[in-house]
Amino acid sequence: MIQIAVLGYGTVGSGVVEVIEKNKDMVNKKSGDEIEVKYILDLRDFPGDPYEAKVVHDFDVIVNDPEVRIICETMGGVGAAYQFTKAALEKGISVCTSNKELVAMHGPELLTIAREHNCNYLFEASVGGGIPIIRPLNYSLTAEKIEKITGILNGTTNYMLSKMEREGVAYEDVLRRAQEKGYAERNPEADVEGHDACRKIAILSSLMMGKNVDSSKIYTEGITAITAADFAYAKACKKSIKLLAVSQLISDDEVLAMVSPVMIDAENPLSMVNGVFNAVMVTGNMLGDSMYYGKGAGKLPTASAVVSDVVDCARHLGKVIMCFWDKEDAKLACVDDMTRAFFVRAKAGVQDAVKAAFPGGESITIPGRTEDFGYFTGRMTEKEFAAKYDSLGDKVLGRIRME
Amino acid sequence: MIQIAVLGYGTVGSGVVEVIEKNKDMVNKKSGDEIEVKYILDLRDFPGDPYEAKVVHDFDVIVNDPEVRIICETMGGVGAAYQFTKAALEKGISVCTSNKELVAMHGPELLTIAREHNCNYLFEASVGGGIPIIRPLNYSLTAEKIEKITGILNGTTNYMLSKMEREGVAYEDVLRRAQEKGYAERNPEADVEGHDACRKIAILSSLMMGKNVDSSKIYTEGITAITAADFAYAKACKKSIKLLAVSQLISDDEVLAMVSPVMIDAENPLSMVNGVFNAVMVTGNMLGDSMYYGKGAGKLPTASAVVSDVVDCARHLGKVIMCFWDKEDAKLACVDDMTRAFFVRAKAGVQDAVKAAFPGGESITIPGRTEDFGYFTGRMTEKEFAAKYDSLGDKVLGRIRME
Repeated sequence: MIQIAVLGYGTVGSGVVEVIEKNKDMVNKKSGDEIEVKYILDLRDFPGDPYEAKVVHDFDVIVNDPEVRIICETMGGVGAAYQFTKAALEKGISVCTSNKELVAMHGPELLTIAREHNCNYLFEASVGGGIPIIRPLNYSLTAEKIEKITGILNGTTNYMLSKMEREGVAYEDVLRRAQEKGYAERNPEADVEGHDACRKIAILSSLMMGKNVDSSKIYTEGITAITAADFAYAKACKKSIKLLAVSQLISDDEVLAMVSPVMIDAENPLSMVNGVFNAVMVTGNMLGDSMYYGKGAGKLPTASAVVSDVVDCARHLGKVIMCFWDKEDAKLACVDDMTRAFFVRAKAGVQDAVKAAFPGGESITIPGRTEDFGYFTGRMTEKEFAAKYDSLGDKVLGRIRME
Repeated sequence: MIQIAVLGYGTVGSGVVEVIEKNKDMVNKKSGDEIEVKYILDLRDFPGDPYEAKVVHDFDVIVNDPEVRIICETMGGVGAAYQFTKAALEKGISVCTSNKELVAMHGPELLTIAREHNCNYLFEASVGGGIPIIRPLNYSLTAEKIEKITGILNGTTNYMLSKMEREGVAYEDVLRRAQEKGYAERNPEADVEGHDACRKIAILSSLMMGKNVDSSKIYTEGITAITAADFAYAKACKKSIKLLAVSQLISDDEVLAMVSPVMIDAENPLSMVNGVFNAVMVTGNMLGDSMYYGKGAGKLPTASAVVSDVVDCARHLGKVIMCFWDKEDAKLACVDDMTRAFFVRAKAGVQDAVKAAFPGGESITIPGRTEDFGYFTGRMTEKEFAAKYDSLGDKVLGRIRME
């Protein structure tokens, strides 16, 4: 029997307990041993809960119990979660987490501590919820030089963009509805400003490079400037607008990482990823594109990923599972120098000015729509584009990167 | 240094050598040791080939060399490949293969031999080419009870169906073009009759059940009866026709496995899988649907999967990697008893007869098309449908299962 503890009895933590109970047979079979939840750490009490007796309020009880071999950290945050994780790993207790903020911020340090103490720090649930992506990157695509990772990594914003696309509604309306449905937080900043996707692409980029990619240095743009009008033009051109988190290998030592809305072709498999679903497209130098798709959030999918890490830890007690993510920082390429095409939306009547700024592009108008027009520029650097776009002042109404 | 041998210097075998050479740094880093190809077994000589000196014609040279720790079996077939695999495993040499026929036929036996000799028999490349699917099933979805697997597992037929859908061409034309392009064999039976997809779903079903699913007992129907007319109706209803390999859990001990063309909704992510791409949709009881997508065939993608197995073997020399696939046969549910709706295409003028046979269904006509009409039946068992359909004799022109 392997005793485990769950830190935080909230949505994901209670999901972990539920998955272990419901899929007991499978989990024990795959673990090669019986998994039992010995403790649940939470500040609250849960009178009447079937696991009430396992709830403790003091982490020391857990970390000082030599029977505890694996801990699931489902608290979130980078304060107590960081202290507890560190303390557990230093005692040789493996930790499985869904806490992307902590992984993005302290991943390499915690991995080093785990290695030094012959235990593991696993974080499959930190990216893409229940979609297996960390393990495929670490154990499956081992014969690949990964050249690019493109992800739809935030379910809230993907739900909002899908709604805007299908129903032609405004950003504010769809945000309100997402909040009503519980898909968006009352303070939606972490999602709509792209910070959540940024942390996740920082984790994937770090695994791709084998070096640390600092999430605070990743260019991040959210979806707050996307309008119903943008979708009208996207639709007219059979394109879609998605919040993409991208990590692209520039050289063996340099990576371009960024989060921003991008207009993509209907042919791109990512355009089919709708609602709260997530997907990660991985481009390898031998395999080409492969894609991993599924529920990127939610209690049970995320918990399922945490428990798959518990199984992995159980099978590797006392052994270190490979994970290449050094403390050394990877070199981040400057977004300014990247080349691409852009979609520009501009006020009616300024065609000449837009064409003069971006010669060789292509105008698009929508029959019956008189207030604005769309324009696809040719390829240019981000810097060049920004200067020209800014020079157009209030003639232009918005711009979106093209794939 | 870990010495390996490659059996068969054909498309996949030469790809294995190429991947190991081109991605040497990555492969060695992930293996934790240097991987070197010591022998290549082939009946032919390869004068001028950079690996000419490594070519041997006698398997005994390889199996009796104690330096050889891992063998890549990329010969295909179930004759010599079976003998060589068995002999290698009995000597404790791990074997990685792309040979789905052999895995489907002798998987549990070879896995048992490997276990008994502390080595591994890995077959990531046998299903879905370069798409990681075996490893995600075995190591990632370990907290899931897998309820259903639905795959587009054959690139040749998917290429043909995609062409028919896009260009409205006839089956015979598209087969000829696929043969010209090298996507289909001169004798295309294994692909177009569904045998290849059948072997692959037998492998996935076995892993899902942990018991053996005998491919020879799986109901298998190919794409030879699909016509341009069927696609005309599918298109008119915003549906797609795909050759689906399906494995569905009926009870803990019973599985329904089948291969057949199915008409699916445009909303289904599998409808976006076009050309030679493959995809596998896995439904778990906690995670819901997750999908794995990529190149299902081709030299380098397949070789990449074989080499990922080499890396796994290298990291587990002397240790057995878990794989639950017992010799015991899983119970296969009878297709006859399964319930679903069907699409029927019938000659113009026989609406009344079709409606009488399948009351409560829905007719569909295409403006300008006078020779036939389409009809969607309600749900019924396969057996019930077949009896009624047969009773319509030459009034009906074809039928396709609905999702």
